Amino acid sequence: MKAVRLHDYRKPPTVEEIPDPVLSGPLDVIVRIGGAGVCRTDLHIVEGQWEKAMDPTLPYTLGHENAGWIEEIGAGVTNLAVGDAVIVHPQPSCGLCFSCRSGDDMRCENAFFPGVSDHDGGMAEYLLTSARACVKLRPDTDPAEVAALADAGLTAYHAVRKAIPLLPPGTTAVVQGVGGLGHIGIQALAALTATTIVAVDTNPAALDLAKSIGANHLVLADGSHVDHVTAITEGRGADVVFDFVAEGGAEQDAWAMTGNGGSHYVIGYGGELRAPTAEFVLGQRNVVGNSVGTHRELVELMELAHTGRIALHNQRYPLEAAAQAFDDLANERVRGRAVLVP
Amino acid sequence: MKAVRLHDYRKPPTVEEIPDPVLSGPLDVIVRIGGAGVCRTDLHIVEGQWEKAMDPTLPYTLGHENAGWIEEIGAGVTNLAVGDAVIVHPQPSCGLCFSCRSGDDMRCENAFFPGVSDHDGGMAEYLLTSARACVKLRPDTDPAEVAALADAGLTAYHAVRKAIPLLPPGTTAVVQGVGGLGHIGIQALAALTATTIVAVDTNPAALDLAKSIGANHLVLADGSHVDHVTAITEGRGADVVFDFVAEGGAEQDAWAMTGNGGSHYVIGYGGELRAPTAEFVLGQRNVVGNSVGTHRELVELMELAHTGRIALHNQRYPLEAAAQAFDDLANERVRGRAVLVP
Amino acid sequence: MKAVRLHDYRKPPTVEEIPDPVLSGPLDVIVRIGGAGVCRTDLHIVEGQWEKAMDPTLPYTLGHENAGWIEEIGAGVTNLAVGDAVIVHPQPSCGLCFSCRSGDDMRCENAFFPGVSDHDGGMAEYLLTSARACVKLRPDTDPAEVAALADAGLTAYHAVRKAIPLLPPGTTAVVQGVGGLGHIGIQALAALTATTIVAVDTNPAALDLAKSIGANHLVLADGSHVDHVTAITEGRGADVVFDFVAEGGAEQDAWAMTGNGGSHYVIGYGGELRAPTAEFVLGQRNVVGNSVGTHRELVELMELAHTGRIALHNQRYPLEAAAQAFDDLANERVRGRAVLVP
Amino acid sequence: MKAVRLHDYRKPPTVEEIPDPVLSGPLDVIVRIGGAGVCRTDLHIVEGQWEKAMDPTLPYTLGHENAGWIEEIGAGVTNLAVGDAVIVHPQPSCGLCFSCRSGDDMRCENAFFPGVSDHDGGMAEYLLTSARACVKLRPDTDPAEVAALADAGLTAYHAVRKAIPLLPPGTTAVVQGVGGLGHIGIQALAALTATTIVAVDTNPAALDLAKSIGANHLVLADGSHVDHVTAITEGRGADVVFDFVAEGGAEQDAWAMTGNGGSHYVIGYGGELRAPTAEFVLGQRNVVGNSVGTHRELVELMELAHTGRIALHNQRYPLEAAAQAFDDLANERVRGRAVLVP
Repeated sequence: MKAVRLHDYRKPPTVEEIPDPVLSGPLDVIVRIGGAGVCRTDLHIVEGQWEKAMDPTLPYTLGHENAGWIEEIGAGVTNLAVGDAVIVHPQPSCGLCFSCRSGDDMRCENAFFPGVSDHDGGMAEYLLTSARACVKLRPDTDPAEVAALADAGLTAYHAVRKAIPLLPPGTTAVVQGVGGLGHIGIQALAALTATTIVAVDTNPAALDLAKSIGANHLVLADGSHVDHVTAITEGRGADVVFDFVAEGGAEQDAWAMTGNGGSHYVIGYGGELRAPTAEFVLGQRNVVGNSVGTHRELVELMELAHTGRIALHNQRYPLEAAAQAFDDLANERVRGRAVLVP
Repeated sequence: MKAVRLHDYRKPPTVEEIPDPVLSGPLDVIVRIGGAGVCRTDLHIVEGQWEKAMDPTLPYTLGHENAGWIEEIGAGVTNLAVGDAVIVHPQPSCGLCFSCRSGDDMRCENAFFPGVSDHDGGMAEYLLTSARACVKLRPDTDPAEVAALADAGLTAYHAVRKAIPLLPPGTTAVVQGVGGLGHIGIQALAALTATTIVAVDTNPAALDLAKSIGANHLVLADGSHVDHVTAITEGRGADVVFDFVAEGGAEQDAWAMTGNGGSHYVIGYGGELRAPTAEFVLGQRNVVGNSVGTHRELVELMELAHTGRIALHNQRYPLEAAAQAFDDLANERVRGRAVLVP
Repeated sequence: MKAVRLHDYRKPPTVEEIPDPVLSGPLDVIVRIGGAGVCRTDLHIVEGQWEKAMDPTLPYTLGHENAGWIEEIGAGVTNLAVGDAVIVHPQPSCGLCFSCRSGDDMRCENAFFPGVSDHDGGMAEYLLTSARACVKLRPDTDPAEVAALADAGLTAYHAVRKAIPLLPPGTTAVVQGVGGLGHIGIQALAALTATTIVAVDTNPAALDLAKSIGANHLVLADGSHVDHVTAITEGRGADVVFDFVAEGGAEQDAWAMTGNGGSHYVIGYGGELRAPTAEFVLGQRNVVGNSVGTHRELVELMELAHTGRIALHNQRYPLEAAAQAFDDLANERVRGRAVLVP
Repeated sequence: MKAVRLHDYRKPPTVEEIPDPVLSGPLDVIVRIGGAGVCRTDLHIVEGQWEKAMDPTLPYTLGHENAGWIEEIGAGVTNLAVGDAVIVHPQPSCGLCFSCRSGDDMRCENAFFPGVSDHDGGMAEYLLTSARACVKLRPDTDPAEVAALADAGLTAYHAVRKAIPLLPPGTTAVVQGVGGLGHIGIQALAALTATTIVAVDTNPAALDLAKSIGANHLVLADGSHVDHVTAITEGRGADVVFDFVAEGGAEQDAWAMTGNGGSHYVIGYGGELRAPTAEFVLGQRNVVGNSVGTHRELVELMELAHTGRIALHNQRYPLEAAAQAFDDLANERVRGRAVLVP
C-alpha cells in the first residue's frame, strides 16, 4: 500500500509503497483510511521535536487523525463489522488497567499513539489499530469530513466538556488561539453552554471565523489583549481561559486573564507558566491540565458532528500530495484543517 | 477594655486600654473574647509584610482567630442571643452580593478581615463583628480551646474537604508542612477519607506529631523527600499534595510530588511556582488555589471538634503576655498554637 | 393602593383599595409592581386547595410572580437603590440560617411565600418584600415581560440546570407538559445542552409551540406516548424525564419513560408515584424532587432572558381585569402566561 | 470437579462431580476457588424466585461471591498470571460497549451473572470467568476471608461511596437492615465519612454488631422506629437512608425517615414504594437506585479490606456441606456470612 513515510528528521516525508498491515492480537482491526488529518504536531515530529520523547524507529508512517472503514477484524472483536465507517481515537488503550476500567482512557498504562510513538500512523491506505480505538460513524458520514476531529476536535471538546460546571449563564470564557483546536472549542462552548465567549487571536481572519461560529467578543492579541479582556469582564477576569497556545508568553497572558475563582485550562504547550503562590491563594485560582479525551467523549463529539452543531473546515489533498499539505500548513496557507485522502 | 495594639511596624505590639467597641449596623454583634489565636500572619503584620496590601491605620488591634460569648446584638440579629458561645469566622461577609448568595463567603465583594485589614481584631476583651461571622458552639465548649480553628483550622479543613472526591481508597495524599494548619489537615484527612497520608516536614518533632494523629508515612524534608514520596507511591506520585508551605522551594517540591492526573493544592504562600505547560498537558496535572473557607465549612469543622475527631494543641497566655507569645512563636518555642486569654 | 384581594374561597378575588405597605425590618424593600403573573397555583388558592397548608388570614392579596421597580428601601439595604428595576424571588429568605449560608435559599428555615402563605402578594400597585428577594434587571428591561419567570420560569430552569451533568450529547430528555413551566424547560435545555429533546403533551397546540422553541421530537399524550418515547430512544428510555405534570397518571408515565440509569425529575404535583423497589435496583433508576430555585439561579435565568435565549409568551391584562385573567386561565383561553399590569 | 448443583427448584442443591470448565474466548480465565459466599439470593434462586427473570438451564452451579487463585488464562489476558490471588466481580463485562467504556460496568450491554443467570457459578472447585472480572488480592490474603465482599460487600460499598458528597460532618445517615450488606455499609460510612450513623434493625443482636463497628445510634425496628429517627435528627429526618431491606413496609419507613433535601437509597428489593409527588417537590427529596458496583469500586473495597477498615464475619463450611450452609442461612443460624471452602 501507499504510505507517507518519515525517513529522516528535518527532511520532508515521502509517499512510497510498503507492505499492508496484518492483524496480530484478538482485538486488532485494520481500517481502510478515508481521510487523515495533518496536524501541527506532524510538523513538530518532522522537525525532530518529539524524537527524544518518542524515539520511533525510522522510517515510519505519520498520521494520528484518522477515519475510514473497517477492513478486517481480530478474533475477539464483537463491536465492529467489516464495512463499518469509523473514526479512530488516536491512542489505543488496553481495557484492563485501572485507568481503563475507570473510563479514563488517556491514562491507560499500556497506551501507544500510532503516527507519533513507535507505531505506524494513518497517512496510508490502511491502518492497524484496536477495536477499542474505533467509534462508529453513521453509515452516511464521509470519514474524510470528520477525520481531524479524532485528535484536534477531541482535545478541544474534552476541555470544554470538563469546564461546563464552571460556566453557567453570566460567566465568561476566553478561547485563546482560534486555530484547529480553538475553532472546535468555540463551537462546543456555543453548543453546550450559554457563557459569554471571548475569542483572542493574533490573526484578524481567525477572529472573523470565531465570530461566524459563536464568539460574542473578538480580541486581537496585539499586546493590549489582557487589558481588553479585563475590560470586557468589568475587571473581574474570565471564569475559564482555554489556552490553546500556551507558549511564547501566551501562557502568562492566559493566567493574567483568569479571574478570582477562575481556572486556566492548559491545552497547548511549549511555554513555561510562572506564578507567585500568593496569586493562587488570594484569588482561589486554578490551573488545569488537559490531554486529548476519552472514548466516551469521542462518541459524544460525533453526536455533535452528526447533528451539525460542530463542523470542521477541511482542505483536501490526495495522499500523494502529502508534502504539499505539510508545506502549506507550515506556511499558513491552510484554512481550517488539511486532510489527506488516499 | 484591654487590647493588643500595633503602633509601629517592626516594634512589638503593646497591651493597653482602649474604648469598648459599639454596635453600628443592624447585623453587628459584640463578642466577649474567650481566646484569640496567635498566628504566623500576626508576625508578618508586625514585620510590615501586609502594610502595602492592607494599609491599616495604626495603632490598631491584632487578632483574627477568635472565639468567645455574645455580649450584645444589633437590631436585625435573629440567629444569636446574648450569652451564646461562638467561634468567629475571620472574614465577615455582606450576605447580599452574588458570591454570598452562592454560599461562597470568601469571595464576598464587601468582605473585610478584622485584625488584618483596617479593622480592629480580637486580641482584646471585646470584638465588634457581624452576626454572619458567628458560628454557635455547644454551651459546654471552652472558646479558648477552639479559637485557633477559626482561621488556621478552617483553611486546612476547606482544602481537605474540597479534595475528598479525589481521594478514594487506594490514593495517596501528601501533607507538606505539619504546623498549625498541616496538623489539622492530617486529622481532617483521617476523619473524612481512607487515603494513604504522607507527612513531609523539615522537623522530626513535627513528624512525630503527624504519626500520632493519623499519618501513614513520615518523610523528613532533607533534600531527598521528593524521591522518597515517589518511592512510596511506586513511581506514580501523589494524587493530591496539600502544600501548606508554598515558599522557599517547597512549592516546586510539591509540584514534583504531584502524579499524573493529580492536583497540587496551594495553601501556603510566599514562593513562585514555575512549570512547563507541557507538564500540565502530558500528565493532566492541576494546581488548585485555596483561601480560608466558608461559614458552612466552619459549622462542619465545629462538628468534628465537638465529636473529638479534630483537636488543637494549645499553649495559653494571658492577654497581657501577648509580647511573650509573639516572641515564643517567632522563636519556635510554641508547641501547637499560642492562644491569648483575656 | 389597588390590590387583588381574596375574601372567600371559591369566590373570585376582587380589586379594591387598601393601605400602601410600609417598611418594617432593616432589609425590607417596597417594590412598585410592573407586572404580576397569574399562575395555576392562584386558581388552586382560590379553590381552597392551599387553605390547610398555608391558612392565610382572609382577605389577603394574591400574586407570587412579581417584577417592578424599587420604591423604598430599609436602613440595612446596601445592594439596591430606589428606581432599580427588579424581579422578585417568590420566597424571601433570612440569610442567616444554615441553608441560606449554603446558598440553598429554598430550604431557608424562616422562609415565607407572599401571595401564597399568610403575607400579601404582588397583584397590587406595591409589594413589601426583602432586599434578599430582589434580582436587578438591566435598566431597559420591561418588568412585565419577565415577571412570570420569577416562579414558573425559575422552577423550570432550576430543574434543567441540576440535570445538566446527566445530559451530555447523545442522551435524551423528555419534557412532559409544555405549559407555563415546560415551555421554559425546553428553552433552557436548548440553551444549555445538546441533548435530544422530546416534548410530550395532550394538546397539539402545545406541541407546535414546543417545536418552535427547540424540541426535536413531538409526542401526543394519547395513551401510546410511553411506547412512542420507548421507540424514539430505541428501547432504552429517557435519561431524564422532566415531569411538569405529576398527577392524573402522568407520574406513572414519566417513571415508565425513565431508562436504566435515568432520573425522573418531579416538578409538578398532585398524583402519587408507585414503583416496586426492584425497579430502582435493577435499573439504577432515580426519582428527584425539585422546588422553585435559588437566588443565584434567578440571576442566571435573567442572563438567559437578557440575551434572548429564553422568552415568555405573555398576555397582558390591566390589574382591574384580574377576574377576567383568572377566568381566562381557568378556561384555557390564555396562550403563554397571563400578566396583570397595574 | 465437585460443584453445588441445582437440579430442581424448591429442592436443595446437591454436591456432585462435573467436568472441569475450559477456556473459550481470549479474555477467559479459570479461577481455582478459595471460597464462595452463600447469599440470600441463593435461597431465592432455589425457591424459584429468579426463574422467570433468568431462566437458567437446570442443572447448573450456584455461587456468585467468589475468590481464589488464577489457574489458567486465555490468549489475550495481559493483566493476570497463573497463581495470582483474586476476587471475582460477580458480573463479567464486555469492555467494548458504551457503558463499559464509561467505567459503568454494571450497565454493560453484554453482561451476565454466573451462578444467577444461565452460567455456572463458583460453588465448585473451579470457575470460568473473564479477566475483566478479576481484581488482584495481595499475595498474603486468604481468598475465603474476602469472598463475600464480591457481591454483598461491593453493593454496600457502592451505595455509600456514591452518597459521600451528601454526608459531610453534621449530617445523619440511617442504615436500615444490619445484615450481610448493612454491616459493610456501616463500616464504609465510618471509614469514609464523619456523618452520624443510625442503625435500624428488628434484631437486637444486629444492633449490638452495629455498635461494635461504628454506629452512633441504635434503633430497634419495633414500630416506633420512624419516630425514633425523627427524634434523633431533631425533627429534620435523615440526609441519607440506606435501605438494605426495601420490602415488607420497610421501604415506606425509609421514605418517612428521609428529611427535606435528603435521599432514600434503595438497595434491597421486594416491596413497592408509594409517595405523593408533592412530597418530592415540597421537600426536594429523592429516591436513588443502586445495583452492585464497578470494577474500580471493588479495587477500592479491597484496599479497605487490606488496611483492616472493613472486615467480614465469616462462618466456613466445606463445599460438601453446602446443603447445611443453605439450611443454616434459611433458619437464621449464620452469624455474619456463610462461606463454602472447596
